[in-house]
Amino acid sequence: MNSHALRAAIHVSAILGIYLALAMLVPAFVDFYYGNNDWRVFALSAFFTGGLSLAVALATQGRPPAATSRFAFLIVNLLWATMAVAGAIPFLASSLAMDVTDAVFESVSGITTTGSTVIVGLDALPPGLLIWRSILQWAGGLGVIVLGLFILPYLNIGGVSYFKIESSDIEDRPFERLSVFATSILGVYSALTMACAIAYAAAGMSGFDAINHALTTLSTGGYSTHDASMGFYGDNLPLLWISSLFMFIGGLPFSILVLLAVRGRVDAARDPQIRVFAGYVFAFGFAVALYLRLTTDVPFSEAFAHSMFNIVSLITTTGYASQDYSLWGAFAVACAFLATFLGGCSGSTAGGIKAYRFIVLFELMANGLRRLVYPSSVQTVRYGDRVVDDDMQRATVLFIASFFVLWGIGTVLLAATGLDFMTSMTGSLTALTNVGPGLGDVIGPAGNFAPLPDLAKWVLALAMLLGRLEILTVLVIFAPVFWRR
Amino acid sequence: MNSHALRAAIHVSAILGIYLALAMLVPAFVDFYYGNNDWRVFALSAFFTGGLSLAVALATQGRPPAATSRFAFLIVNLLWATMAVAGAIPFLASSLAMDVTDAVFESVSGITTTGSTVIVGLDALPPGLLIWRSILQWAGGLGVIVLGLFILPYLNIGGVSYFKIESSDIEDRPFERLSVFATSILGVYSALTMACAIAYAAAGMSGFDAINHALTTLSTGGYSTHDASMGFYGDNLPLLWISSLFMFIGGLPFSILVLLAVRGRVDAARDPQIRVFAGYVFAFGFAVALYLRLTTDVPFSEAFAHSMFNIVSLITTTGYASQDYSLWGAFAVACAFLATFLGGCSGSTAGGIKAYRFIVLFELMANGLRRLVYPSSVQTVRYGDRVVDDDMQRATVLFIASFFVLWGIGTVLLAATGLDFMTSMTGSLTALTNVGPGLGDVIGPAGNFAPLPDLAKWVLALAMLLGRLEILTVLVIFAPVFWRR
Repeated sequence: MNSHALRAAIHVSAILGIYLALAMLVPAFVDFYYGNNDWRVFALSAFFTGGLSLAVALATQGRPPAATSRFAFLIVNLLWATMAVAGAIPFLASSLAMDVTDAVFESVSGITTTGSTVIVGLDALPPGLLIWRSILQWAGGLGVIVLGLFILPYLNIGGVSYFKIESSDIEDRPFERLSVFATSILGVYSALTMACAIAYAAAGMSGFDAINHALTTLSTGGYSTHDASMGFYGDNLPLLWISSLFMFIGGLPFSILVLLAVRGRVDAARDPQIRVFAGYVFAFGFAVALYLRLTTDVPFSEAFAHSMFNIVSLITTTGYASQDYSLWGAFAVACAFLATFLGGCSGSTAGGIKAYRFIVLFELMANGLRRLVYPSSVQTVRYGDRVVDDDMQRATVLFIASFFVLWGIGTVLLAATGLDFMTSMTGSLTALTNVGPGLGDVIGPAGNFAPLPDLAKWVLALAMLLGRLEILTVLVIFAPVFWRR
Repeated sequence: MNSHALRAAIHVSAILGIYLALAMLVPAFVDFYYGNNDWRVFALSAFFTGGLSLAVALATQGRPPAATSRFAFLIVNLLWATMAVAGAIPFLASSLAMDVTDAVFESVSGITTTGSTVIVGLDALPPGLLIWRSILQWAGGLGVIVLGLFILPYLNIGGVSYFKIESSDIEDRPFERLSVFATSILGVYSALTMACAIAYAAAGMSGFDAINHALTTLSTGGYSTHDASMGFYGDNLPLLWISSLFMFIGGLPFSILVLLAVRGRVDAARDPQIRVFAGYVFAFGFAVALYLRLTTDVPFSEAFAHSMFNIVSLITTTGYASQDYSLWGAFAVACAFLATFLGGCSGSTAGGIKAYRFIVLFELMANGLRRLVYPSSVQTVRYGDRVVDDDMQRATVLFIASFFVLWGIGTVLLAATGLDFMTSMTGSLTALTNVGPGLGDVIGPAGNFAPLPDLAKWVLALAMLLGRLEILTVLVIFAPVFWRR
């Protein structure tokens, strides 16, 4: 790692800072429109962030460095750190008087689309702050789509990009297509968000709520404008189904959504991870609905809507809750616990382990068992009709192993801050998978992260960033080999 | 799989049945000596088991089949199933009037050296039944040492055998050495058990208790003659340290103990898994002791003795408890939870994931991170100064992946039987790792498995067998490819 690359990475981050400063003008406008004094806070934050970013950007101008893996890792980490810091500034400056820990936690939970909150009293919050939280998640979601489609696959981390699998489409003229593709992603992401907002409003949400929830639904973020999350709307079943649908879409690979929307190519949908993702969403959702129906008097249609909504919310790592499902009985809790691990598709806004990794893992397991019976047999690992190369097998194992090791470390660290075992164990898990709620009295679906000790909040924020950047992107930075030479 | 191999496997299992029938004469003698009427039960059980086994053995005589992997897998599964069934017979026939579920659970928990019990009122139990429980664990421990040293490494499952690593010793004249080696193992295992019993008696246990606990210490089984487990002896710190020492020895590779004892070769102790095992035992034991010292008024010597005892008990998968450590605070509980995963060394009586797998896994992780930075670098996975071949890397990953998948399935199945989440989650874990106690009100260190529903007991018994046979040995039997042709 040389100073030339470091300078260039800081330069790119500063340019992102300018964009984030511009984004702060949105809540400024909203607060001004609603006659809330916090508009000055956002205007000031925008001025401060923008000015500082501009200064840094100018001071770090120069020729771009060689596009090495190391440079890519560095820049990804710096970009997310920039988002985390810039996102926290309005929280620090606002009328809420949040301290640094809470402001950074809320910001990181936003940009990583986790959705755990330390703010109590969302219903009475100034509209500007609410829309800022939603914007952070929406921007964080967009960022992770771009990361997952354009950067991680080429670092041998992010798993399957449609274009890595069906590469003939892009290899001939990558640049022309890439810019079209990037614009298309932004367009499809925005169009889906608008469609979601309209559907929400049609199902009974206020316009402001509809926009906020649409921003945090497509990004599978989960921030709500109500302390009760979607529970605020009670048994509005159409609303639950609309939300389930758009969360599910948020868990799909965006490359495929774009190909479908822009070029009408349906064949892309045969990506195996989509079937596995849809399969476990339905299996868990249906099993919990059946369990609810058998153990309570709730009609099946209602049980199914609530069950599916909360399961989709957990599996897509959104983190909304329509009810306190931790009171639904042990089977539902066990399913919610497992659902927290699963995640959506590669190239989506969802976190977690993700469907394609399970495909690779189960292929590895089936091959391994076959080899135990026929030790001399040679087996290839397949993803659909493609062969999974050694690097991707290695990255899958590396990710899952790191995931469980970090989960263990997180659990012990949180417990050392004085949190009870259930909070520590599920807290580190829900942060690492960017889901949002954990289990137990404190951080369960009806809880809040506010009462946690400061140290615990920092541990969780770090876990969220690790999870969001597919763990390895961050771990690499801490490896001595990264900084050598 | 052909009928020839199946017949031969049944024949070998029947011969084991004859030995187990002979073993039943020990509790018969003990009960007779103490004037307990249950001696008739054991004599009858021995007669029944022995007669049946003899008949089956005679009916299945014939030439041995080719020594294929499939035959080895089949025979290992059948041998443990035979132990499970034969072990249950005295429980079924005894004055306790246990039903089939409880008898099989207690027997499986014994032969897998798990140590979870469904018997309440151990202190008042007839001595014959107590010694039978201890014998089951001791025999199960011996069985798993033999399995781990002679069978699993050659099926590419069991990881590192000293002889697979330092193979020059054995390759020249394997048979002569193997018989000497097998006899030496039995000798060292017996000698250590006797030494442990003497030390226990010297530290204040009654002769009967000393023998029983020695049988279940060296086998890292954990059955006690008291409902309060080692807590019965209160703050007898020398006793705790003696027990910790012998449990630790039980977690060491037996090949190395034999080489040390029989041939005085100390150099074998440089096996890297021993350092890792000792390392995490000390780290966890010391951390919890420090935590206890800081949060209570207990003197450090007492805190250290209790902490180390319970941590060694969990890591070696013994399962004794000297206190209800679930009341020690969240950090201690989190450490106990993690300690449940770890396990001892390959070729020991301990279950769990085991130290050598962590070595392979961390080597894989370090290599993977290095490759992310330098994509074209070629890395080998090392275990000490040896290279870990592809098969062993694959088996390690396969084991750990299967472990976590089965843990998840077990959790959901247990929750479906009506158990609370904590009991389900830690119950499936403690069964799969052959530890014994879980967490929570029901199956915690102060609890008992008696109140569980029948279905849950069967799920747990299956998980214990899966864990004991390193998971893959059992999974292979369920793979369609196993039965083909």
